[in-house]
Amino acid sequence: MIRINDHFLKLQASYLFADIAKRVEHFQASHPDKAIIRLGIGDVTHALPDACIRALHQAVDEMARDQSFRGYGPEQGYAFLREAIARHDFQSRGAEIEADEIFVSDGAKCDTGNIQELFATDIRVAVPDPVYPVYVDTNVMAGRTGIYRNGGYEGLVYLACTKDNGYVPRLPDAPVDLIYLCFPNNPTGAVITREQLQTWVDYARENKALILYDAAYEAFIRDDRLPRSIYEVPGAREVAVEFRSFSKTAGFTGTRCAYTVVPKACQAYGPDGRPVAVRDLWNRRHATKFNGVSYPVQRAAEAVYSPEGQRQVRELADGYLKNAAYVRQAFSDMGFDCVGGDHSPYVWIDGQRDSWAFFDLLLDKAGVVCTPGAGFGRCGQTHIRISGFNSFANVQTAMTRIQAALQ
Amino acid sequence: MIRINDHFLKLQASYLFADIAKRVEHFQASHPDKAIIRLGIGDVTHALPDACIRALHQAVDEMARDQSFRGYGPEQGYAFLREAIARHDFQSRGAEIEADEIFVSDGAKCDTGNIQELFATDIRVAVPDPVYPVYVDTNVMAGRTGIYRNGGYEGLVYLACTKDNGYVPRLPDAPVDLIYLCFPNNPTGAVITREQLQTWVDYARENKALILYDAAYEAFIRDDRLPRSIYEVPGAREVAVEFRSFSKTAGFTGTRCAYTVVPKACQAYGPDGRPVAVRDLWNRRHATKFNGVSYPVQRAAEAVYSPEGQRQVRELADGYLKNAAYVRQAFSDMGFDCVGGDHSPYVWIDGQRDSWAFFDLLLDKAGVVCTPGAGFGRCGQTHIRISGFNSFANVQTAMTRIQAALQ
Repeated sequence: MIRINDHFLKLQASYLFADIAKRVEHFQASHPDKAIIRLGIGDVTHALPDACIRALHQAVDEMARDQSFRGYGPEQGYAFLREAIARHDFQSRGAEIEADEIFVSDGAKCDTGNIQELFATDIRVAVPDPVYPVYVDTNVMAGRTGIYRNGGYEGLVYLACTKDNGYVPRLPDAPVDLIYLCFPNNPTGAVITREQLQTWVDYARENKALILYDAAYEAFIRDDRLPRSIYEVPGAREVAVEFRSFSKTAGFTGTRCAYTVVPKACQAYGPDGRPVAVRDLWNRRHATKFNGVSYPVQRAAEAVYSPEGQRQVRELADGYLKNAAYVRQAFSDMGFDCVGGDHSPYVWIDGQRDSWAFFDLLLDKAGVVCTPGAGFGRCGQTHIRISGFNSFANVQTAMTRIQAALQ
Repeated sequence: MIRINDHFLKLQASYLFADIAKRVEHFQASHPDKAIIRLGIGDVTHALPDACIRALHQAVDEMARDQSFRGYGPEQGYAFLREAIARHDFQSRGAEIEADEIFVSDGAKCDTGNIQELFATDIRVAVPDPVYPVYVDTNVMAGRTGIYRNGGYEGLVYLACTKDNGYVPRLPDAPVDLIYLCFPNNPTGAVITREQLQTWVDYARENKALILYDAAYEAFIRDDRLPRSIYEVPGAREVAVEFRSFSKTAGFTGTRCAYTVVPKACQAYGPDGRPVAVRDLWNRRHATKFNGVSYPVQRAAEAVYSPEGQRQVRELADGYLKNAAYVRQAFSDMGFDCVGGDHSPYVWIDGQRDSWAFFDLLLDKAGVVCTPGAGFGRCGQTHIRISGFNSFANVQTAMTRIQAALQ
């Protein structure tokens, strides 16, 4: 008899964004004339940068002729892209990362979801609270948690991110082995300083723990004192894996390209306590279960690093940041506690009421879609996340409607 | 301490095709003037069909304007593609498959590798021998096997595919729960008749087993009596998942698109023996760990189903089949036992000697790359796989060189 992986049965209801989509669909069906403004899921809305469009067309033309056609590429990504990434995103900032430590993929969601496969099922896992649900759900599926109870899974260590600690978690009281960190944070938009990040790297080194550092939003950082990569912090190469994405940087949510950095020095431990290179495990997984990113898409990602590409993605991010700052200001003016929106496209707003109720209120009264904080964990119960991913005009309209709805 | 998933330590050496690449690289370095002809990995060599190229350019243009730009799509794939697939690949042949049973992905390698996550770790798994290594390695990583010994992993049931049974495995002696089948087969090129497939479906129904049917090469079938899909066989909807790919059909190995079919009626069983819909589990996994295929690529896949797309992919496959038939004839004329090459781009040749020795001989003396059968399992020890993925001129040259080398 073919029996299922019964850890799947522990998963709570459906995936957060699917839930939201259902409510929005229902609202739209009953209000067909209402123009909904979506500031929820964190999906970009502006066209791809010209540099990427040109690179895509050119690569498609290559695929049209036998002589320049490309079949299977390296699973880890083409050297032209891995080298551009290593040079521009790391070496230029003094972070010692080589091209062969870069693994190109089709999404940071996939990578942050798949990475846990490399580790034992009985390790202790720490996640931020609020948390991007993928970190949690993939560990539930793999059997690293108990059942869901009181708003959390048993066996997981939740690191509270609240106003009290400036939305940067404190070190855990009990030892943990695998630590998910995300800065600029999704969903709060909070950032971490170099000194705070050093504390975590030191903790990981002392406890032989591993940090999974999700930096999918680093392109929004506008203060050069803030670290864009964990590898800007001394000692991180041995204890950290970093995730990056072109989704938010360059508008690739529908085009699909991301990458994961696994330094050769990064270690985990075998059953006999001997160190094993995490890079070798990830490389084996990548080569066995993945077949590389579409060639034209890799050329489009490469174009992000051209001078015009760099200028264009900077402009894109600046636009979304302007929107987020506007949202934050408007909510602050109404007396709400807010974080994010300065080095992040997200604003995290304490609504002082149940977050799904606040979600429904904004949808019903203002026709604006946000993301209810409860979907991200206990610490999000009274919060909502609003994203700057839209046009400035729509963001202005949304805030005018929200102001009217909340009066 | 962050401990690894120690099942990874059971994996044998590096991945088959990586091994081959290393030997080829070494040969090329020491014979820089020799023009190597690659008939190994099974990678297509001809340009994308015009219909796909046009669809790609058009979709890229859509991505260049805010109004037509697409961000995140449905994780399961766009309706335009899922509907085209259901209609053309299934309903047109009398197989009752709906669009919402189609899950679009970036590769059949990923899907056949990921599907095992849905099932318990202590089920009994049967794989063909010879076998596409991904089926085995992903089950090893998940802990469903013992150690590697005598050319196989303990705990796996290997279904011998030999000349004796016409390269179609017999039903297992002991009960199994999860069964990998692949027709037209990789690596042997053998096909299965409707009656033979019915035997497997009946077995699965009687034993509450599940069949994972890899039909990545169905586009090469030229005899209409042969089933292209397992769903052409009565009773399969309840007990089979099917994998398809645009890689070999339409030359998408570097473009990346595939799909998996999970009928709503397909069942596995929970810890209490109650049936669970496999489709719901796969949908949950897909939505949690995957973010959809690149939008322009989905448009290119859709174009495969246009009238000119259908004509162009047929021509592509016909060309590769002509090559494979030529290879088979030439080896048969030299007195070798062969299978495949009629409804498959692969020819499986019994070299009557160690397969790596035969590989090295063909590389060293003829400059031709094949795939050594030992890399696919015990039953491949004396075989090699040669693919028709190349130009006809190159295949002719390769066979002339091989004939000279073997004299």
